[in-house]
Amino acid sequence: MINFCQFGAGRIGAIHAENIARHPGASLRVIVDVDPSAAQRLAQRHGAAVGDAGSALADPAIGAVLVASSTDTHADLVEAAARAGKAIFCEKPLDLDIRRAEACLAVVGECRVLLMVGFNRRFDPNFARLERQLRDGRVGRLELLAITSRDPYPPPIEYVRASGGLFRDMMIHDFDMARWLMAEEPVEIFAAASVLVDPAIGVAGDVDTAVVTLRTRSGILCQISNSRRAVYGYDQRIEAFGAKGALKAENVPLSTVEFAGADGIISEKPLPFFLERYAEAYRRELDHFIAALDSGTAPVVGGTDGVKALHLAEAALQSLQTGRAVAV
Amino acid sequence: MINFCQFGAGRIGAIHAENIARHPGASLRVIVDVDPSAAQRLAQRHGAAVGDAGSALADPAIGAVLVASSTDTHADLVEAAARAGKAIFCEKPLDLDIRRAEACLAVVGECRVLLMVGFNRRFDPNFARLERQLRDGRVGRLELLAITSRDPYPPPIEYVRASGGLFRDMMIHDFDMARWLMAEEPVEIFAAASVLVDPAIGVAGDVDTAVVTLRTRSGILCQISNSRRAVYGYDQRIEAFGAKGALKAENVPLSTVEFAGADGIISEKPLPFFLERYAEAYRRELDHFIAALDSGTAPVVGGTDGVKALHLAEAALQSLQTGRAVAV
Amino acid sequence: MINFCQFGAGRIGAIHAENIARHPGASLRVIVDVDPSAAQRLAQRHGAAVGDAGSALADPAIGAVLVASSTDTHADLVEAAARAGKAIFCEKPLDLDIRRAEACLAVVGECRVLLMVGFNRRFDPNFARLERQLRDGRVGRLELLAITSRDPYPPPIEYVRASGGLFRDMMIHDFDMARWLMAEEPVEIFAAASVLVDPAIGVAGDVDTAVVTLRTRSGILCQISNSRRAVYGYDQRIEAFGAKGALKAENVPLSTVEFAGADGIISEKPLPFFLERYAEAYRRELDHFIAALDSGTAPVVGGTDGVKALHLAEAALQSLQTGRAVAV
Amino acid sequence: MINFCQFGAGRIGAIHAENIARHPGASLRVIVDVDPSAAQRLAQRHGAAVGDAGSALADPAIGAVLVASSTDTHADLVEAAARAGKAIFCEKPLDLDIRRAEACLAVVGECRVLLMVGFNRRFDPNFARLERQLRDGRVGRLELLAITSRDPYPPPIEYVRASGGLFRDMMIHDFDMARWLMAEEPVEIFAAASVLVDPAIGVAGDVDTAVVTLRTRSGILCQISNSRRAVYGYDQRIEAFGAKGALKAENVPLSTVEFAGADGIISEKPLPFFLERYAEAYRRELDHFIAALDSGTAPVVGGTDGVKALHLAEAALQSLQTGRAVAV
Repeated sequence: MINFCQFGAGRIGAIHAENIARHPGASLRVIVDVDPSAAQRLAQRHGAAVGDAGSALADPAIGAVLVASSTDTHADLVEAAARAGKAIFCEKPLDLDIRRAEACLAVVGECRVLLMVGFNRRFDPNFARLERQLRDGRVGRLELLAITSRDPYPPPIEYVRASGGLFRDMMIHDFDMARWLMAEEPVEIFAAASVLVDPAIGVAGDVDTAVVTLRTRSGILCQISNSRRAVYGYDQRIEAFGAKGALKAENVPLSTVEFAGADGIISEKPLPFFLERYAEAYRRELDHFIAALDSGTAPVVGGTDGVKALHLAEAALQSLQTGRAVAV
Repeated sequence: MINFCQFGAGRIGAIHAENIARHPGASLRVIVDVDPSAAQRLAQRHGAAVGDAGSALADPAIGAVLVASSTDTHADLVEAAARAGKAIFCEKPLDLDIRRAEACLAVVGECRVLLMVGFNRRFDPNFARLERQLRDGRVGRLELLAITSRDPYPPPIEYVRASGGLFRDMMIHDFDMARWLMAEEPVEIFAAASVLVDPAIGVAGDVDTAVVTLRTRSGILCQISNSRRAVYGYDQRIEAFGAKGALKAENVPLSTVEFAGADGIISEKPLPFFLERYAEAYRRELDHFIAALDSGTAPVVGGTDGVKALHLAEAALQSLQTGRAVAV
Repeated sequence: MINFCQFGAGRIGAIHAENIARHPGASLRVIVDVDPSAAQRLAQRHGAAVGDAGSALADPAIGAVLVASSTDTHADLVEAAARAGKAIFCEKPLDLDIRRAEACLAVVGECRVLLMVGFNRRFDPNFARLERQLRDGRVGRLELLAITSRDPYPPPIEYVRASGGLFRDMMIHDFDMARWLMAEEPVEIFAAASVLVDPAIGVAGDVDTAVVTLRTRSGILCQISNSRRAVYGYDQRIEAFGAKGALKAENVPLSTVEFAGADGIISEKPLPFFLERYAEAYRRELDHFIAALDSGTAPVVGGTDGVKALHLAEAALQSLQTGRAVAV
Repeated sequence: MINFCQFGAGRIGAIHAENIARHPGASLRVIVDVDPSAAQRLAQRHGAAVGDAGSALADPAIGAVLVASSTDTHADLVEAAARAGKAIFCEKPLDLDIRRAEACLAVVGECRVLLMVGFNRRFDPNFARLERQLRDGRVGRLELLAITSRDPYPPPIEYVRASGGLFRDMMIHDFDMARWLMAEEPVEIFAAASVLVDPAIGVAGDVDTAVVTLRTRSGILCQISNSRRAVYGYDQRIEAFGAKGALKAENVPLSTVEFAGADGIISEKPLPFFLERYAEAYRRELDHFIAALDSGTAPVVGGTDGVKALHLAEAALQSLQTGRAVAV
């Protein structure tokens, strides 16, 4: 039985709290949040206490920490938890600044605690199935990967301003997927991007539509496309092409109901956004973290994965600014 | 908070027990089963006690009873629970004998307790969505309904012998779906059937492949087809045709992954059987029962629905024996 | 090179004329029609002459006759052509009256000429592919067949009155498909039907929505459903279930274009009606007729097939009137 | 009635010859080919004569010339035909050398003859429908375009050597599609490529797997991916994303038949290669050429389109060599 302290009682925090609470091998003990009433509500729902970071990390009964607070607090909390000897699950990213993230990783390394980073998509049942079949050689040698990732609508402009930009905030998930599925590091990256969805995003110094090309040493190519808007719902698809065929993972529809009418055959839109699409992924991600703790093995997504995805985001930005492919 | 006593610790019982246990408005208190070790295992998993029918029904703390024991015990347990003033959720059927089922219903009526029958498919999110759209008039007036229901493999022959036959055991679900979706009672039924899957089923006096035609007073037609075998997985589909178009609910695939290879484009099979396909339906069904209890309203599937579906099963058998359409 | 005389210059006639004209092994010589201007237009388009039945059948240069005139003329023309020693392609049905059709067949038999009946659906590339896979044992032993056949809109009421009714006019195609795909004769038939699309069809003594159950001696079951209306387009589908799996042939969409928008994912409707859906089938059907003539072998759809389908239509009507399954 | 002289009696030539022959407004008079027996066979099949370039172009009865000979002969033939005052349909490309192609265009311009270039995909019914819906604003403003184009298997290595390379030989079609669908010229292009299918292709100085990013002045982004191998068949798909939704054109399957078996649900592969997939496109392309001639209007794909696509191919090569985005 692992006792958790969770930092963050927001939207993602609510998901993690529920998954900890329902897990037979875990117990949600303490919720910490800058907003005491949010902490209170979430704690109450799951029979946990409201606490502060200092006491929680000092409490020897707490075995694991889940960091789902705002991005700018991640690195400090991870370091503090590492120094307190706790196992850590941290929402991505460790930090928007790559040096800060690396410094944080160094501390984790010194403290020899387990750290898992929240790249939830690896735990989506559909993507996990595709990855397993890739590993099993169903398409033979992988030659080309295409990742489509489109949010249903852009985030609030204040969120955009603090987000670190589309590459660090949104495409970072796709960079992780690309690394995971190609099973080989990219050596070159090229990015192109536009502001097409909302001029305010451009004013905030960001882009809202972006495509990236990756290339690995052995020559595998990867195309990623991102948009901050898809009126038909959250668009999350992957195609992988190889010598023996192609695999794709399609969107998950709201239901299997289809209407045939005078205007065509209408099937359901994809699940609306990440809370719905990745509900099962969040559960499996936490299961994996707890299983890793139980067995003392490294989780499949560690701190290094977080930093490597950040490196790709940085390189994408640099490519965008220089109009060149950037070596990674 | 409603305290449950559950009868039956088998395969379906395990599902119901978990759904009661995870429900915030319910508490699983007592498990009763003829096999004490099965009762013990299930009780332990959910922090419940093992008990016997007498004490459990006598316990004023128990507010609701869930009957998931073997079919031949349903009617007695329902009557006992009704007399003890408990709300009752009973797996289908109330009894294979229609007179016994009707007598049981009479007792429930006298005792004025709430009774819900486990026609779980009404709570499948896909079928529920189709039904809602039918009610909302999306296809206009309903003209024709087609229900396909195929099990992945036949049950053990001992099960077949005790099952009351395909119409009472398997197609009874489709009869309920037909009544629900047509929102009108059938007045005529015709059945044809064969033994094609396993001769032993014929020896046991049953059929394994069957088709039925229903007709309502206003002329709506319904085609049902059943088979005890579908090597590609549990096949559960509905099509509804009307003046303004058609609605269909397709099978739910194992995942959205698709493989394109030299032999074709291969997508996933449907979820393998009812435990997987109707997992969400079982949860929603229990939610509905508890919500009905809380609000004091009648559940959408009452004892009468159980008896009416049984009447259709009887009439189907009679049609099969006489080669005539049978008036209902 | 086979020289054709064609009877009938209407909608179906125009298709056949074009297919004869484009065929490298055939030449369209004469068009005969009760409407001389229709005959003139069609003849001119294909460089044929307008003629009359007597001279055309007396002309030794004419080797084959294609009968696409109105149904009530079929039997007489087929007999005349047979007596003139011509090979005959006749649109279905030979006659609405089964005795007349049988008498006609007898004449054909005596004259020992080749006769092919226009059950065009056997030549649809999709259905032909499904049939081939059935024959090759892909689903193992066939157990259940489901045929869905829905016209986009009802025919004019005068057409309904002269049509011989839905079973002889529309479902006759499905009876032929059932016989062909089951590769075994039905021994029992049950029909249920309603007037749901247009009351005028009921006033004309016909039905517009109908379902039929067939059963063969070995126990194969077949469900057919027909409607005179499908606002989403011509609905022509088949499913075949067997011991090793299921085959289905879906509708052919207008294009592969799909739109994902705020209201769902909208794909194209099926091809609108038989002229579009069966364009390729009409071509292949004629190719088959000419190939049969060239090789001196019997075509896959002969006069007997026409009569057997009519017998099923008669039996369906009788079942509808008596409420009983009818032995065939 | 337009009389054609056709240069080239190979695989593509056979298609064009048949389409000319079946066209009511055209007559195939002369076939010219370096291989006299190939010319003879094709001429015989369609009742044409075998001729030589000089006499054919001197013949005033010839109104139009179709150039389907080997690529290195295109520019000379087009110029000769232009000087002879013939309307010209030329298979892509005009020439692999862009200066030669431009010089050729200049001659055509001076001679004021009609020239159409064979970008057949614009006439594919599915892509044409997608384009029409884009033009009609169905997705609102276009933001992102994704073009997938994969051949089933690589061409012979001698073909590769003479082809001008993947960008000029294969992706040139996709460059034309991109220009056509974006309705705006790319201003920037980036290419990445690998040799993954066959090392011999690399030895020949070419690549076999390539991805390209285009960007227009207004910011529309386009991703193209090409491979010389797809074991599941000819893969030709387009997705277009915009403010109001997304359109996609899927592959055309061999048939609509689907098999559900123990290994999954298997649907048909795409049509095997361009002869099958674009059969209808070739027909419509020729119809368009003849209609343009008849009406005296410019065809939708002129010589400039051929040159602009070549410019993109050149820029892609330059990008590949420099690792930079190249301004166009």
